[in-house]
Amino acid sequence: MRVGPPAVRIREVGPRDGLQAEAPLGVPDRIRLIAALAAAGLREIEAVAFVSPAVVPAMAGAAEVLAGLDRGSGVVYVALVPNLKGAELALEAGAEALDVTMSASPEYNGRNIGQTIEQSLRGLRSIRAAAGDLPVDATISCSFGSPYEGDIEPAAVASLAAQAVEAGATSLTFADTTGMATPRRVEELVAAVGPRVRLHFHETRGTGLVNAYTALHLGVRDFDTSIGGLGGSPFAAGAAGNLATEALVHLLDDEGLASGVSLDRLLEAAALAQSLIGHALPSPVAAAGPRSRLAPA
Amino acid sequence: MRVGPPAVRIREVGPRDGLQAEAPLGVPDRIRLIAALAAAGLREIEAVAFVSPAVVPAMAGAAEVLAGLDRGSGVVYVALVPNLKGAELALEAGAEALDVTMSASPEYNGRNIGQTIEQSLRGLRSIRAAAGDLPVDATISCSFGSPYEGDIEPAAVASLAAQAVEAGATSLTFADTTGMATPRRVEELVAAVGPRVRLHFHETRGTGLVNAYTALHLGVRDFDTSIGGLGGSPFAAGAAGNLATEALVHLLDDEGLASGVSLDRLLEAAALAQSLIGHALPSPVAAAGPRSRLAPA
Repeated sequence: MRVGPPAVRIREVGPRDGLQAEAPLGVPDRIRLIAALAAAGLREIEAVAFVSPAVVPAMAGAAEVLAGLDRGSGVVYVALVPNLKGAELALEAGAEALDVTMSASPEYNGRNIGQTIEQSLRGLRSIRAAAGDLPVDATISCSFGSPYEGDIEPAAVASLAAQAVEAGATSLTFADTTGMATPRRVEELVAAVGPRVRLHFHETRGTGLVNAYTALHLGVRDFDTSIGGLGGSPFAAGAAGNLATEALVHLLDDEGLASGVSLDRLLEAAALAQSLIGHALPSPVAAAGPRSRLAPA
Repeated sequence: MRVGPPAVRIREVGPRDGLQAEAPLGVPDRIRLIAALAAAGLREIEAVAFVSPAVVPAMAGAAEVLAGLDRGSGVVYVALVPNLKGAELALEAGAEALDVTMSASPEYNGRNIGQTIEQSLRGLRSIRAAAGDLPVDATISCSFGSPYEGDIEPAAVASLAAQAVEAGATSLTFADTTGMATPRRVEELVAAVGPRVRLHFHETRGTGLVNAYTALHLGVRDFDTSIGGLGGSPFAAGAAGNLATEALVHLLDDEGLASGVSLDRLLEAAALAQSLIGHALPSPVAAAGPRSRLAPA
């Protein structure tokens, strides 16, 4: 029997978005975690970021991580790059896809990557030229609102997205960087940009899963998630991290939507992540296990 | 201008379901918390349980709590009662509504209240007779599955619900006691029992809000929630407590569905709850604030 493509595609961002807020792990530990995620069936993994190690110490050694990964296993390893220099380093190191981040919030763009949005778009154009045939995803942060400007009109987000595509992005990810998305705002943004996009949610206000569920019903089939719900600082009140990969897979399994990911293997990867970082994960499914787990007799 | 009834009715269960797992608070502190919840606009508050103080020390002093509440403020104060003796004490103390709990899981019923389901139904009948004209809600725990028996057929839950109504329950609450509900299972149960019921969710697996959202779309308009998401043991891994009142109100406000509850006042009540119990609340909205809260300039 032929196995069809997954109904829902997950880009695992734990090794990048998840680990960047944690105390740095060594390169071998990061490679082990990525291997465990690949073994769970994840086929696209944002593995590294080519950013300044002085600013984000947890992402140091990106080239070494990429060099240590099992290539040819059918997994696409993505590198986040903030600018052309990062992209050049990522390409040299053998990244198979790039993720370029920019923000729908001018203030956040300035604070996060020290650029105006115009500069970010110019940077994307130069990255596109350097990347040859490789996929270049544009992740647009603060797509559901900004802690600086407040609500951001879906039409403005859609306009920036169109400029990113014009500048060479081969796919688009809309990120809810600070947990301001709600089902209604997911509906509004998807109405503006269409369902053939990737969405990236955080649990800052506990809405990540309901937002993903809403998006599924609107036909969205691509999501960023992070193993264990890692992503927010575990030391800051209210920073509850990314939508957990196991939370989404738990929901998809129950809905009968194939993701190609094994929840059991994913929970093994979550246990590994917890042992490596040395504190409890924010994800309830990682802690409680799947709903099928019965009490001991 | 006439103010219409709320579109969604919330029964606040924090002073009962929330506090029962915490180190006991004194009667005056519990009265203060209940007053803060009433000030936020909650119009039905499960304030106490008439259970053995030896078994649930945090619920001791139920009659004293009821005696200290501001009556005549338009708030209905509900008492949870496990049996006729508890109901008689609650009625003597002036409870305005009773909540009788029984379980769709025979094993859980035995462990939680030491009765068979038959005994629980007989108990409900005797409570009904004692309660005169007062409302008697039947809360059916493990309605979405049991950690002992696993999945429980919606038809079996509906059959028990019908027996509870026949025994005198004036309303029905279906509780997801151990966080096994999912959107699909909410759809299945509501299809079996209809939308004119109350649902009670836990965040054990982070699905409380998405389950409530699903139920709203099915026409359900009554929910139990707990201030701050209190309800699970803060000492047990994975016990993430009840669906937080502020999480539901935050969603309802964004959906334009009136609940009559002020989110700002609710967050004040959550802050009071946190100061009284002395540890961080599980609720992300309590920690992060509403999505409208911008970063300091």
